[in-house]
Order: sequence, then C-alpha cells, then structure tokens
Amino acid sequence: MASPEIEALVQALARLPGLGPRSARRAVLHLLKKRETALVPLSRALEAVEARLATCGICGNVDTSDPCAICADPRRDARALCVVEEVADLWALDRARLFPGRYHVLGGRLSALDGVRPEDLRIDSLIARVAAGGVDEVVLAMNATLEGQTTAHYIAERLEGHPVRLTQLAHGLPVGGELDYLDEGTLAQALRARRPVM
Amino acid sequence: MASPEIEALVQALARLPGLGPRSARRAVLHLLKKRETALVPLSRALEAVEARLATCGICGNVDTSDPCAICADPRRDARALCVVEEVADLWALDRARLFPGRYHVLGGRLSALDGVRPEDLRIDSLIARVAAGGVDEVVLAMNATLEGQTTAHYIAERLEGHPVRLTQLAHGLPVGGELDYLDEGTLAQALRARRPVM
Repeated sequence: MASPEIEALVQALARLPGLGPRSARRAVLHLLKKRETALVPLSRALEAVEARLATCGICGNVDTSDPCAICADPRRDARALCVVEEVADLWALDRARLFPGRYHVLGGRLSALDGVRPEDLRIDSLIARVAAGGVDEVVLAMNATLEGQTTAHYIAERLEGHPVRLTQLAHGLPVGGELDYLDEGTLAQALRARRPVM
Repeated sequence: MASPEIEALVQALARLPGLGPRSARRAVLHLLKKRETALVPLSRALEAVEARLATCGICGNVDTSDPCAICADPRRDARALCVVEEVADLWALDRARLFPGRYHVLGGRLSALDGVRPEDLRIDSLIARVAAGGVDEVVLAMNATLEGQTTAHYIAERLEGHPVRLTQLAHGLPVGGELDYLDEGTLAQALRARRPVM
C-alpha cells in the first residue's frame, strides 16, 4: 500500500473532472517518477495560483489579479460587453480571440427548478455597469438552453430603456454539423434565420 | 486570456498522462471555482509528497519514507520476494492485495533496442538480497512481453545455485477474455498450460 501522503494526492487528483481513481493513480506515478520536471512545477504552479486567486470585482472572472487581466487591459474595447453564464464560457470565447471587448460573468443561469433567482446572479452589477455609461453594445452569450435563453430574455428586459445595442449569438448549424444528426430545434432555428446566398 | 500563473498551472496539468490541454483547462476551472475544497487540498497533498518523496533503498519502490511502507511492515512475509519491472507494476499487484510478501523493483527491463543492460537495472541488489539469505521464493512478475520475459530469463540464470524457489506468473486467458478476440500467443500459452478439470 502507498503511504497516506501518496493516497491523499491520488484522492485529490481523482476528484478533478476528467480524472478517475485509475487515471489519478497513473498521474501520481508519473509525478513521483518525474519529481523535478513534473511534481515540483505542478506544486509551484498551484501555490502561485492559490496565493493570488481572486474574483474580478468588475466582471466576475477568476484570475490572479483584481481587476482581472481582461478588465485591466487598455487594448480591450470597453464599449462592447459580452455577458456569459460561467467563467468557463468566458474562457471558451476568449480562447478563440474573436471578441475584442470585455466580459461580464453572471455566475449561473436563472432556474426555477434549481431555485436560482435574479438576485443570485451578478445581474445588478451588469445593469450598473451599463448604467454607468460608455457601453455601446451588450452581447448576450448565454447557452442555447431553455434556462440560458430565459436568462437572456430577463436581462434584455432589465436593460430596456438603456441606450445600448443588445445582440445575441447566432443560432444555426454548428460547423461540420450534418443535418441528418441535428435535432429539430437546431434545424428550425437554422431555417428560420436563413440568409440569402451571396 | 488567463494570467501567466493560471496558464502555467494549465500547462503543468496538461503534461500529466491522461490529461490534454482541454481537460487540463477544465480541471483548472474546477480548481479555481472550488478553492477551499479542491485547490488547497491538492496543493497541500503535493507539498506533502514533494517534501518526503524517497526511493526505498531496499526494494526501489517510491514512497514517502525509506525504507518504504511495505519493506518496513513486519507483517509482510520477508521470505517471498516478487520482482517487478516498474513501480506501477508493484502498485497494481499490491492494490489487489494478493501477495503477502515483499517486492523488488528493477526500474525497467532489459532491451537491446533501447540499450538497457543488466547494470542499468536493480539486478545486482536483487541478487544481494537473495544471497543475504532468508528468502525462500522469488516470483518473477515481469510483463508478458518479449523484453519482460528476456529479463526474467536473465534473472533466473543469475539466481541459479541460490537455494530459492523461482516462480513466474501464470500465462493464459485473462478473466472475461473471449477466445475469438485473443491473440494466438495467448491461446498457445493457455493451451500449453492446460490443467485437468477438478
């Protein structure tokens, strides 16, 4: 049997998404064999993040500084605001480097089932950011789920009367999507939003 | 873009076996969201292992103590020695709790191709352990590969003349194995080693 320290490490790793007990064990063996090139760098990286982890007071992103790197970056267009449900969504969008503006993380979606009400999300701070002025466009980048779209509708209503352009992500066929395999909802959206061929 | 500290953590995790850049990113998001229940415990577990990591001077196992927990355990039968190629093999066998004796980790297998010679493995220390007396049986638990079996043969030759019983793991059908899907080598071994039905 491995020592309690090693078992504790296996268990801490096994709780990560995408890792189970078996792969955690393999990962730990790798760490033990490569102390200097794997274990120590990972340990240092964790410590560094742990010491400086912060939630951005402006947008709700998690980062190692507050305000986060995006909000602090003067090259990011402050006039465009992209509203997302979770930090993971922000990362996914920002990895693609398609959006030059800034973000606002709600921290979830409205859900009657899970008892998530507007005051549980960072909606008031979004309204305050818009009301403070300087924002021309708000992109509602909620998930294409019922709850995501309900949240988008709610925010759109709350922002009524503010002089901003409200937009949302296009719905339709995903790249590489085959009609045969797509659900009726996606097909209906794609047909409804059909565009003239250039 | 995430901060350099977070990127460093993603990259350190992505180098673990079983994790890629995508799953490492998901794991980091999980760690950031669950600072107290995921990030801190993992960081502490890594530190604890890092501080005490040691290779057992007797058997070659990696553990947080030297001698390792197995070699130091008086309940383990010192008269039976199971020789394995890697620490991972020791863990796999020991997890099944089938072997009551102790282990000896070679640290690899003989390989003309990779230039691994007997002096590159912990074979001399194995012979010394056996020569010191008190060992009745040596189980050669090498992998069922050409190189594993070559290594087993070599060790068997080196141990000739020592008053120990040499055994090796049985070869044959794996539990749940279907004949239709098994390779000829396994079928040949299983047929050659056939036993009377009780």
